[in-house]
Amino acid sequence: MFAKTSLSGFPEWLPEGRIIENAILDHLRKTFELHGFASLETRSVETLDELQRKGETSKEVYILNRLQELKEERSSKKERPLGLHFDLTVPFARFVIENAGSLAFPFRRYQIQKVWRGERPQDGRFREFMQADIDIVGDGALAFHHEVELPLVMIEALSGLPIPPVTVLVNNRKVVQGFCEGIGIESVEDALRAIDKLDKIGAEGVMAEMLENGISAEQGEKLLEMAAIRVESGVTDAVLALGVDNETLRAGLEELDALLIAATKRAPGRVVADLKIARGLDYYTGSVYETVLEGHEDLGSICSGGRYDSLATNGKRTYPGVGLSIGVSRLVSRILGQELVHASRSVPSCVLVAVNDEEHRSEADDIAYALRSRGIPTEVSPNSAKFGKQIKFADKRGIPFVWFTNEEGVSTVKDIRTGEQVEADAATWMPPATDLLPTVVK
Amino acid sequence: MFAKTSLSGFPEWLPEGRIIENAILDHLRKTFELHGFASLETRSVETLDELQRKGETSKEVYILNRLQELKEERSSKKERPLGLHFDLTVPFARFVIENAGSLAFPFRRYQIQKVWRGERPQDGRFREFMQADIDIVGDGALAFHHEVELPLVMIEALSGLPIPPVTVLVNNRKVVQGFCEGIGIESVEDALRAIDKLDKIGAEGVMAEMLENGISAEQGEKLLEMAAIRVESGVTDAVLALGVDNETLRAGLEELDALLIAATKRAPGRVVADLKIARGLDYYTGSVYETVLEGHEDLGSICSGGRYDSLATNGKRTYPGVGLSIGVSRLVSRILGQELVHASRSVPSCVLVAVNDEEHRSEADDIAYALRSRGIPTEVSPNSAKFGKQIKFADKRGIPFVWFTNEEGVSTVKDIRTGEQVEADAATWMPPATDLLPTVVK
Repeated sequence: MFAKTSLSGFPEWLPEGRIIENAILDHLRKTFELHGFASLETRSVETLDELQRKGETSKEVYILNRLQELKEERSSKKERPLGLHFDLTVPFARFVIENAGSLAFPFRRYQIQKVWRGERPQDGRFREFMQADIDIVGDGALAFHHEVELPLVMIEALSGLPIPPVTVLVNNRKVVQGFCEGIGIESVEDALRAIDKLDKIGAEGVMAEMLENGISAEQGEKLLEMAAIRVESGVTDAVLALGVDNETLRAGLEELDALLIAATKRAPGRVVADLKIARGLDYYTGSVYETVLEGHEDLGSICSGGRYDSLATNGKRTYPGVGLSIGVSRLVSRILGQELVHASRSVPSCVLVAVNDEEHRSEADDIAYALRSRGIPTEVSPNSAKFGKQIKFADKRGIPFVWFTNEEGVSTVKDIRTGEQVEADAATWMPPATDLLPTVVK
Repeated sequence: MFAKTSLSGFPEWLPEGRIIENAILDHLRKTFELHGFASLETRSVETLDELQRKGETSKEVYILNRLQELKEERSSKKERPLGLHFDLTVPFARFVIENAGSLAFPFRRYQIQKVWRGERPQDGRFREFMQADIDIVGDGALAFHHEVELPLVMIEALSGLPIPPVTVLVNNRKVVQGFCEGIGIESVEDALRAIDKLDKIGAEGVMAEMLENGISAEQGEKLLEMAAIRVESGVTDAVLALGVDNETLRAGLEELDALLIAATKRAPGRVVADLKIARGLDYYTGSVYETVLEGHEDLGSICSGGRYDSLATNGKRTYPGVGLSIGVSRLVSRILGQELVHASRSVPSCVLVAVNDEEHRSEADDIAYALRSRGIPTEVSPNSAKFGKQIKFADKRGIPFVWFTNEEGVSTVKDIRTGEQVEADAATWMPPATDLLPTVVK
């Protein structure tokens, strides 16, 4: 279902793959809208200043030049340097600042768009890919309950897709911060950077790195004990049992517990407090989320995000936010690559209207118009070859029905999968509901 | 409905505008799929070689560089120069060549994507904008009847939008070619270039330009007579009455007439043969189409295209095609700019569930889950302020219904537009069908 391509890192799908991708995108959009998220689409282009504001990913940015501008050797008046966005958070933050006066806060939006990163292409890592983001952003303040709400929306969205079950792993910056402070670690960032490598280099490796950074063996061991906690409930008790306690830690644990309790009710088994989750904890200020797909843990997180106390700021006002982002292309690429699903056909058409001869094409068109007027995707045979060839044309595309009209004007419709052929009236005939549109089947 | 923006030529819409744009895109997609066009999405990026194959638009291309690559001063191994596509035809042609073995011909596809052009931004001319294309491409051959089919699909698509009626203006390369040959004009290209300016510089200006290019006054006058023909039927008679006749001309007139006859039946009054349509006639080989919007002729053509005898070729095989492209952003920009329509609300939510106090938020969530499970877009009040404030929150977004549950657990739902409040059960209550989803109203 992958298209052949001459550029690595820029995936394209054949029509069947695109039907599957569209079904996924439609479901995500529908779920987001059911939860009241408004659709937003930002331009693909940002100023380089905006893209580099956070610094560290700047090296992955694709910058743009007009070919003509280069030819002019930039002699004429300079344009501001532009680049393609590498995520949907930076453009959303910029949009919020520019349009705060026209938005109603807390503002809930979803955004499904391509993003670009000039990274070295690898399996599942692309240079152009689709992301699906939801965020809620407040003006000045944003209630904690949105940090409970967002992962539940994403679980609902992902659970409706033709993929194995997902588990959202959650942690909280305040828990790690409070815990580190409680055991006397000064550089929380160093601790986080080390813990983040736990899955890769193991406890010993993490310990070695912490020792190098001035964290004592005793502190390191406590931290590893904390990082080993992975529970669906009772996270407060589990952490406090390690003998560390302070206000920041308590505040974080209360939030984590609230999230687990809500998840037990709304999505039992789908949310786990996993205290080694550290990626992004340097910029998130509360909850942080990662999502793993059962049996596809090698994909890494397919949906990540967290809480920012300052998603955007213009100096005068600060906009806190919480957001989650699905890596759609990575997910679709896995679904197609391992053929987890198929589309029932490679074209939208449910019916092919056969053409007896070119002089009677207009009558076939009449049938097609009548069927389409009732929502039945229909195409007319491109040629008036022998019926066997026209049937073969339909068969090759997976079109289930072929419509014939004989010289007396009597119409029949043939299910070419079973060979069953029945008389039919274009003004009333309907295909079975499961055949009307292409479907995605396991 | 326009968002404020810091970059001219890169338009963005506020949530209400996006609802209107999405309604338009959904309708286009639905119409294309009803006619059996498969969805395709190509990467945004092409090699510069591919983008410059046709030469003349190359100056408008945005080329890409990885910022890191520039820093490395291109010392490491060179990557092929890349640029953003400036239309959807070039990428489609490339895709067809690369994937011909996996496609079934004639292949019908639609493609709705952003394109980029580094042109100077002007009213209605953007640097980043959305196009919606349909094409049918054959392997070696493509029957003429697809040239009749395609503009009719586009008329159906455009007629379903909240815009004034459209008129498709058609011409045919063979008609102009045959006519020029018939009156002894050698350089058809010169004639076409002059005629193309008829609306801008008038008949005298065109004549002057033709005279400069070695076309005689007599030839020029004949050509202007031809270019003045604008009829809904009988184009063959009208042209032959000018006393020119040959095989190429006859072949073109037969095609034009067939298109007009079909249009009279399927879309009366919507298709006009307009023989001064010359844009694109240098690369189209048969039918050529432009589309004007009644009362918005200043917009120029909102949907253009034509027939190519060689949409794509790999040397061994040639793929003829016929296609049409809607300039969606230009259209949406006009609709929003002149407020031709409004959205019934700026968010998807139909219901806001009021929260009595934060301790009972979970019960409000229960109501919301019950409503959403039956397809009713619902959000829960972000705060538990006084009900008056919660109603104001809904009102600001245009959410029509607010749901209350009193201490005895009795639910009522209030239509905040009328003030009517009735008892309701979240397991059965449905809003009026017109309120379920945001609608686009004139």
